[in-house]
Amino acid sequence: MKPPPLITLMSDFGSRDSYVAAMKGVILTILPNARIVDITHDIPPFAIASAAYTLKNCCFDFPKESIHVAVVDPGVGSERRPLLLQAAEHTFIGPDNGLFGFLTEIDLNSAMEIDAAALPNRTLSSTFHGRDLFAPAAALLAKGKAIGELGSPVPLESIHLLEQAKPKLTASSPKAYSGETVHIDRFGNLITNIDAKLLQGDCWQVAVEGVQLGPVRRCYQDVPKGDPLALIGSSGYLEIAVHAGSASDFFRGKLGAMVYVKAEQ
Amino acid sequence: MKPPPLITLMSDFGSRDSYVAAMKGVILTILPNARIVDITHDIPPFAIASAAYTLKNCCFDFPKESIHVAVVDPGVGSERRPLLLQAAEHTFIGPDNGLFGFLTEIDLNSAMEIDAAALPNRTLSSTFHGRDLFAPAAALLAKGKAIGELGSPVPLESIHLLEQAKPKLTASSPKAYSGETVHIDRFGNLITNIDAKLLQGDCWQVAVEGVQLGPVRRCYQDVPKGDPLALIGSSGYLEIAVHAGSASDFFRGKLGAMVYVKAEQ
Amino acid sequence: MKPPPLITLMSDFGSRDSYVAAMKGVILTILPNARIVDITHDIPPFAIASAAYTLKNCCFDFPKESIHVAVVDPGVGSERRPLLLQAAEHTFIGPDNGLFGFLTEIDLNSAMEIDAAALPNRTLSSTFHGRDLFAPAAALLAKGKAIGELGSPVPLESIHLLEQAKPKLTASSPKAYSGETVHIDRFGNLITNIDAKLLQGDCWQVAVEGVQLGPVRRCYQDVPKGDPLALIGSSGYLEIAVHAGSASDFFRGKLGAMVYVKAEQ
Repeated sequence: MKPPPLITLMSDFGSRDSYVAAMKGVILTILPNARIVDITHDIPPFAIASAAYTLKNCCFDFPKESIHVAVVDPGVGSERRPLLLQAAEHTFIGPDNGLFGFLTEIDLNSAMEIDAAALPNRTLSSTFHGRDLFAPAAALLAKGKAIGELGSPVPLESIHLLEQAKPKLTASSPKAYSGETVHIDRFGNLITNIDAKLLQGDCWQVAVEGVQLGPVRRCYQDVPKGDPLALIGSSGYLEIAVHAGSASDFFRGKLGAMVYVKAEQ
Repeated sequence: MKPPPLITLMSDFGSRDSYVAAMKGVILTILPNARIVDITHDIPPFAIASAAYTLKNCCFDFPKESIHVAVVDPGVGSERRPLLLQAAEHTFIGPDNGLFGFLTEIDLNSAMEIDAAALPNRTLSSTFHGRDLFAPAAALLAKGKAIGELGSPVPLESIHLLEQAKPKLTASSPKAYSGETVHIDRFGNLITNIDAKLLQGDCWQVAVEGVQLGPVRRCYQDVPKGDPLALIGSSGYLEIAVHAGSASDFFRGKLGAMVYVKAEQ
Repeated sequence: MKPPPLITLMSDFGSRDSYVAAMKGVILTILPNARIVDITHDIPPFAIASAAYTLKNCCFDFPKESIHVAVVDPGVGSERRPLLLQAAEHTFIGPDNGLFGFLTEIDLNSAMEIDAAALPNRTLSSTFHGRDLFAPAAALLAKGKAIGELGSPVPLESIHLLEQAKPKLTASSPKAYSGETVHIDRFGNLITNIDAKLLQGDCWQVAVEGVQLGPVRRCYQDVPKGDPLALIGSSGYLEIAVHAGSASDFFRGKLGAMVYVKAEQ
């Protein structure tokens, strides 16, 4: 028999409280054979952009029909809408606060506002919709409930987007772009908003914080240990790293640092 | 076919050592199709009260028949008893040190002392009963072993309780209570021991650390960003929060801070 | 029906990025009913010895046929080989950098170099072989693919080993050894490289950092709270602890601190 769709969970709930467990308990009570995978619960509190970045980078590695529940929800209890979105044969459930804005660039097929009245009969708290609304909606959907029974359609173009810095073309012959760092990962790698696709076909020189990094490298070992470099990271964006070290430490890295690339003539 | 009962795990083992994995390996060796859910392993070392608080707040969100293994066990290797308790159709396994005291307020049906001799033939270490005793007991129970084969009954009233501060009635007309903060969550919310049930029917003014918070609010957005407030948290207790901020930072929060509520006339 | 072999995951990826989730998504896409257990992802960045220590301490608690994927891979993208090893009826997958050296002391049956060309058709990034190479290899193996289809044999004696400090016999009548601390766990316990087997049959006095700890104790409670002691830890090695405290704090513990044991006459 086909197993039920996967449910992935992401939040800023951290790992030391009972919040994540409560969501899992609710799901498993509704659907005893639910399959739950944690993406991460260590999104910094209220950091919607960080959550969107992280979700975007792994959600489509999961099988089609997966249900992704993402709860970074500073507006919980207010009028922000609870959403159920479908894009590229995946389903996304969470608050309408920009977290799912990236889906509008993909293939957003349908958008629903979840109706709390369609869910099992539990009092809806005003501080924990992860447990009281998003988790039950995901479990019911994984159990086979039709999407139409969980809420009502809303216009695709009404979905909240995030303001996001885009790289700028600063010269056209030879081409040059300025971008910025948008994520610092566990290793201290500084991930930029410069898509590898922008860099195809040419050789590029990279500079960050006044340091010339030379050309885009293939792997960390292309420079001596301790030296900084730029390469295309696993998410498909230009990344600033230090071989066997931390670029974040090296550059006293912060989000929003400017990164420059220039095509070689 | 019905899946085996869920096994939840909670401990103060943290996430960087092999201790939690060892428990899971032992369970999966005894019961290959075991279903294991982590509650948390980030209970501060030896913090029994914190573990009890966390377990109480989510255990009954899991399906009936779940087996909750909780190992915060500063007395491991000494004479403290290994327990198997049943309450409200859930089973609880762990050391008799107060961790399960809250069950006596619920519906504690049976209490057993686990007999190490009833478990698979592994040497019982004196420092890791999570792996050598509690995990195997849970796995055998989930596999279908009768409780009576795992140990011997002990009197329900012999279960170790935790000393816990209760809110005090400080005035009766209008009513007023003093309580205290008993948990600080990941967001810096200060959760008190004042049960929402105490506050029913009246409007209450709240004060903490000399700051008047006004009435109990419905949601974070009822005050401007950065302002403190009091509301009923998702666990059903009065909670001190800061809208889009951390009450713990705001009040230099510590456990045991006094919180005052007073009914409006 | 028999469930597929367990896949365990260990890495230095931490818990806040999308890296671990990407690996799980890849596995579950190849094998929808995969059973995945995290060992830990909190190995310090690039800390191969720490990873090897942690893996060794729990891998054989898992059922036979388990597939252990360990990715602490500072050489990713360089010429280091991707390995698939079999020992004691378990399979190990990861980079050839010493992580699996401990298996040569056990019962290493076969060693293969994984051939990326045998894996599903995804571009191999030069920074994330966890997702692009090790996870798919594990999933295919769990799905039933023959090992011979995943790569080519390499000589067992070509596997990279780690330099590891061994305890030294410093006197022979009565016997005395000097060893050192090789791991600090979450509780601050200092785990040494002195195997309990060395200490059988005699009574031993223990000293560390100039402090006499007396004989090897049975459990933490054998000394007053706050006092240091030595005992045989759950991994089977001599361990320095503090009753209800942290030996790491007590001794300003660091890896490589000298530990002395001396048999009593």
